[in-house]
Amino acid sequence: MKLATLRNGRPDGQLAVVSRDLKRFVSGGKVAPNLQAALDTWETSAPALAEISQALNAGGIASRPFDPGEALAPLPRAYSWIDGSGYLSHLERVRTLAGSKDAELQSARPLLYQGGSDSLSGANEPILVSDDGLAVDFEAEIAVITGPVPMLPTRSEAAASVRLITVCNDVSLRRLVADDLQNGFGFFHSKPSTSFGPVVATPDEFGSAWRDNKLHLKLRITVNDALFGQPDAGIDMHFDFADLIAAAAGTRRLIAGTIIGSGTVTNRHEEAPPIKRDGIGFSCIAEARAVEKLKYGKARTPFLRDGDRVSIAVLDAAGAPVVGAIDQRVAIYRR
Amino acid sequence: MKLATLRNGRPDGQLAVVSRDLKRFVSGGKVAPNLQAALDTWETSAPALAEISQALNAGGIASRPFDPGEALAPLPRAYSWIDGSGYLSHLERVRTLAGSKDAELQSARPLLYQGGSDSLSGANEPILVSDDGLAVDFEAEIAVITGPVPMLPTRSEAAASVRLITVCNDVSLRRLVADDLQNGFGFFHSKPSTSFGPVVATPDEFGSAWRDNKLHLKLRITVNDALFGQPDAGIDMHFDFADLIAAAAGTRRLIAGTIIGSGTVTNRHEEAPPIKRDGIGFSCIAEARAVEKLKYGKARTPFLRDGDRVSIAVLDAAGAPVVGAIDQRVAIYRR
Repeated sequence: MKLATLRNGRPDGQLAVVSRDLKRFVSGGKVAPNLQAALDTWETSAPALAEISQALNAGGIASRPFDPGEALAPLPRAYSWIDGSGYLSHLERVRTLAGSKDAELQSARPLLYQGGSDSLSGANEPILVSDDGLAVDFEAEIAVITGPVPMLPTRSEAAASVRLITVCNDVSLRRLVADDLQNGFGFFHSKPSTSFGPVVATPDEFGSAWRDNKLHLKLRITVNDALFGQPDAGIDMHFDFADLIAAAAGTRRLIAGTIIGSGTVTNRHEEAPPIKRDGIGFSCIAEARAVEKLKYGKARTPFLRDGDRVSIAVLDAAGAPVVGAIDQRVAIYRR
Repeated sequence: MKLATLRNGRPDGQLAVVSRDLKRFVSGGKVAPNLQAALDTWETSAPALAEISQALNAGGIASRPFDPGEALAPLPRAYSWIDGSGYLSHLERVRTLAGSKDAELQSARPLLYQGGSDSLSGANEPILVSDDGLAVDFEAEIAVITGPVPMLPTRSEAAASVRLITVCNDVSLRRLVADDLQNGFGFFHSKPSTSFGPVVATPDEFGSAWRDNKLHLKLRITVNDALFGQPDAGIDMHFDFADLIAAAAGTRRLIAGTIIGSGTVTNRHEEAPPIKRDGIGFSCIAEARAVEKLKYGKARTPFLRDGDRVSIAVLDAAGAPVVGAIDQRVAIYRR
């Protein structure tokens, strides 16, 4: 089934069951007022929501048109947003020139950081920045929402905890990253609100594309309507979601509604050519710039500025966006 | 007024209004089901809860005995737990020997890290660790819970956002700290669930001891019933809570229910003598060990082991714990 959180004037929004084709929805309010409440009672709420979903997809229930512009983040305020680093080549590329003190790759276990989870952005909400000179970047990722995970879970417990899957944009202010990392306390100021796809889907909605705890589908990323990247999220994911979840629960349990990010999706290029050459491109501007510096001696791709638009979707084999698209513009925050 | 969250089998617990002397309580359920709900509607809920509080303190309302053992963390699952570094001497001491790559002090602006907020511990819950060989330590801090804070607040907006005050224990696994910091992603595995005092109090409950955005009261910290530290939280706080909150909201807004920690409370010693000498002592074991290494060439104070007990309270001028005491034992986590 596919679910969304619709704007209703309340902090947690209104739970909605969305049709497979993303065209219609039915309120999930009879089952749970919002997605967190559904996750808290998943054993009973999931079957009830699945029943609504089946009726909706069969056209056997009154429904309304689904407008992704009305979608908040699936969990507009979540209790935990943990971003991983599943794809090593992102770190390889970015760390070569970000001034990181520690270029050594951590290939033995995944890096994780605790992100701000109290105000997550909807798919069409603006990327609000105080200053667009901060090197505004996006990072296209796959995100999963888990059920409860005990401390020190087995790999299969970690794998089985995945409830819902979507895309996200881990918005990054590159000019603040080095400072955040160098003080040792990790990302903080450099990571404003992360944005999420308008819809979340259960693993079964992806069919065989969800296997080995990875999503074997391509992203489609555009910047100002030009294709920027289309890496396959199933390729080069060194740490899969079971690895990331198990690592996250290494010294503490996770509660239902924990969001785990894959890290920036990247596929290794033969010689890192531009998007025109191999069609893979990049899932963030920093990587493109890093490759350009190596190749041309100078970064060419500019960071995002006020009004710039970024779109991120995950496409099924037929090219349809499974969970809708993140489609945001940068906007200058004004009091 | 003083509030608490009592165990009721639900993830967010039950809101309670606690008497000034911490002996009695009345359910706050007529006003809001839990503390987060009260914070979401503070303009109306605060006066209603204050009315209950007045009646309770005047003995004019039916009440029940308050048992801090029944208290969960005030927000057992919070949307944001941000720990600051208000007291520079903690960093000075710990960084001299923790192997940190960056011993340079950041005295121009406070360091902050985003902590795991999804499973916070109650005052009497065990400190659960998978292995007590991980150098289990406590950090005694003051914590405030805020209302909503806009991005880039003024200092007075930041100051006015403080709704509630309590103590906390930022439990730390020292053996994992260096690794967390060296990979640049910040504290993660080294910080299991943080613990909080059984009661939270509005600033007015502290009278003139809450001024200049600092709490001018002494902590009382014991380890296995022996006095370990009694620093004054109002002394040597280089960054006050207005500074910490304003810094936290530098690139994103904060929502109601955000918890901000002061960082480990430390007072500078003349020559860092043991607790017997100047009566100040320490708010964490790592600092005591750092000072011992400098003084004796060897750390003497052991880290916490299975069964060890740590207690943290903030005392009023008469020596009474204003928000009760954190009183926890280390326990080995078993599946």
